[in-house]
Amino acid sequence: MTAAPAAAARRPWSTTITIRFSHCDPAGIVYFASHFDILNSVMEDWFAEALGIDYHHVVGARRVGLGYAHAACDFAAPARMGDRLVYSVTVERVGTKSIPVRIGATKDATEILTASLVIVTTDLDSGAAVPIPGDIRTAVTAYLERQG
Amino acid sequence: MTAAPAAAARRPWSTTITIRFSHCDPAGIVYFASHFDILNSVMEDWFAEALGIDYHHVVGARRVGLGYAHAACDFAAPARMGDRLVYSVTVERVGTKSIPVRIGATKDATEILTASLVIVTTDLDSGAAVPIPGDIRTAVTAYLERQG
Amino acid sequence: MTAAPAAAARRPWSTTITIRFSHCDPAGIVYFASHFDILNSVMEDWFAEALGIDYHHVVGARRVGLGYAHAACDFAAPARMGDRLVYSVTVERVGTKSIPVRIGATKDATEILTASLVIVTTDLDSGAAVPIPGDIRTAVTAYLERQG
Amino acid sequence: MTAAPAAAARRPWSTTITIRFSHCDPAGIVYFASHFDILNSVMEDWFAEALGIDYHHVVGARRVGLGYAHAACDFAAPARMGDRLVYSVTVERVGTKSIPVRIGATKDATEILTASLVIVTTDLDSGAAVPIPGDIRTAVTAYLERQG
Repeated sequence: MTAAPAAAARRPWSTTITIRFSHCDPAGIVYFASHFDILNSVMEDWFAEALGIDYHHVVGARRVGLGYAHAACDFAAPARMGDRLVYSVTVERVGTKSIPVRIGATKDATEILTASLVIVTTDLDSGAAVPIPGDIRTAVTAYLERQG
Repeated sequence: MTAAPAAAARRPWSTTITIRFSHCDPAGIVYFASHFDILNSVMEDWFAEALGIDYHHVVGARRVGLGYAHAACDFAAPARMGDRLVYSVTVERVGTKSIPVRIGATKDATEILTASLVIVTTDLDSGAAVPIPGDIRTAVTAYLERQG
Repeated sequence: MTAAPAAAARRPWSTTITIRFSHCDPAGIVYFASHFDILNSVMEDWFAEALGIDYHHVVGARRVGLGYAHAACDFAAPARMGDRLVYSVTVERVGTKSIPVRIGATKDATEILTASLVIVTTDLDSGAAVPIPGDIRTAVTAYLERQG
Repeated sequence: MTAAPAAAARRPWSTTITIRFSHCDPAGIVYFASHFDILNSVMEDWFAEALGIDYHHVVGARRVGLGYAHAACDFAAPARMGDRLVYSVTVERVGTKSIPVRIGATKDATEILTASLVIVTTDLDSGAAVPIPGDIRTAVTAYLERQG
């Protein structure tokens, strides 16, 4: 009886973002740097909605950086303004000071891009990498188990 | 007598870019998507200065896209506004419809980032990949042989 | 009995936007150019939601530009990441080839900014200003009468 | 005999910026928010070259904000990638806590835009406006007298 909800819960979190005029370049498609910028928005919303943690509070008040040591993207098909892309987030593992994630974006049945980001938690005052704060570790670990 | 110039000519092309206020984020360092945006500026100047080809004319008048099928960056150290980064470009090979390049950026003796971009030449009207235009192929091939 | 709905309908359209990490600068507040970028998003959503016209279709398929002849903003108070700003749009008048609008943004009871944009409809192929297309004129005129 | 240099010195400072691919939108022209972003680069270089003051050091180490209370731009003609725009800066007056400036940009003989920015000096920790620091006041006042 609980099978359906459990199965539903085991899908990775996803969100839909509409491509804006300002994301696009003279070729009429999303500029590659804008794709990376959008990925950061996806991360912010993933923190809030999937982890239950306020990204802006972490970076702002707590002064814990959530920047990247690595960012990569394979662009499979162009996206244009007005397109509604569905982004889904998968955690690869939970490191000591880093969290590698994969993000896929699709438009209808078409793959648009696959990205790999390695989040590194840092002390924003010193700039040094720091162990992932406990609440973030707990939430990401739970997500990792839940994502299926 | 011509040894020194020849040796000099065998270094990859490089350019210096000053980090702007607008490149930086609330952490006070260059936002990762801005790093990718800067890399596109490096590509534009590399076309003009190292290949002798007008990037904007290629994309604008000739309608040949120079977008990326892949973009990746490893961030080794943060960069801050006012930093002057030296970017150097190495061609990995010349494909049929793609040109994979590597870009390294340093600040003084410090490595800031290493990036990998795969340029794909496209027909901007159809969006389809097209063989690298002859003048670009010739110039990139010459650069590849010259870069040492 | 219909007074309340009528009164409600006579308020200008408004939308809420969350300030992103990437909107903010090393001062920790929204970068002024990002404020203008956000205003374009507000315009896109205003077209879709208040006018019932697909902004991206106008600019994309119909090749009618919706750029600005004038853009101005008074910044009353800073906005920070995580802030939820409410933007409301008022049409000043409907010109022959231009639509001047005013946009106010508030955070709770605090005024953040007041902006003035003059949209000019253009032929994207020639770049010349063109009369406002009929469907846009009709929708903006109706909005102007409705906005109170 | 010194008339020519004196006359030369009485022209406002100007700088040339090349429009990038990334500045442009699907209409193929500079996106209005990118125009404002470029204006900030002009301000950074004006500080360094015309005032002899390191903008990044003021905002970074000294924690004095150089944001805007007002920003406005009239767009006279579109600019496209590859265009080389000449920006010239005129100080309107030196206030207590603010510096209103005007910036004009031309391409060859064509006016592209005229902008008005009101710089406000702030304490980046409190966010409050502060009197213009002495060195900046001295340099801007000297520029005002010199600009002709």
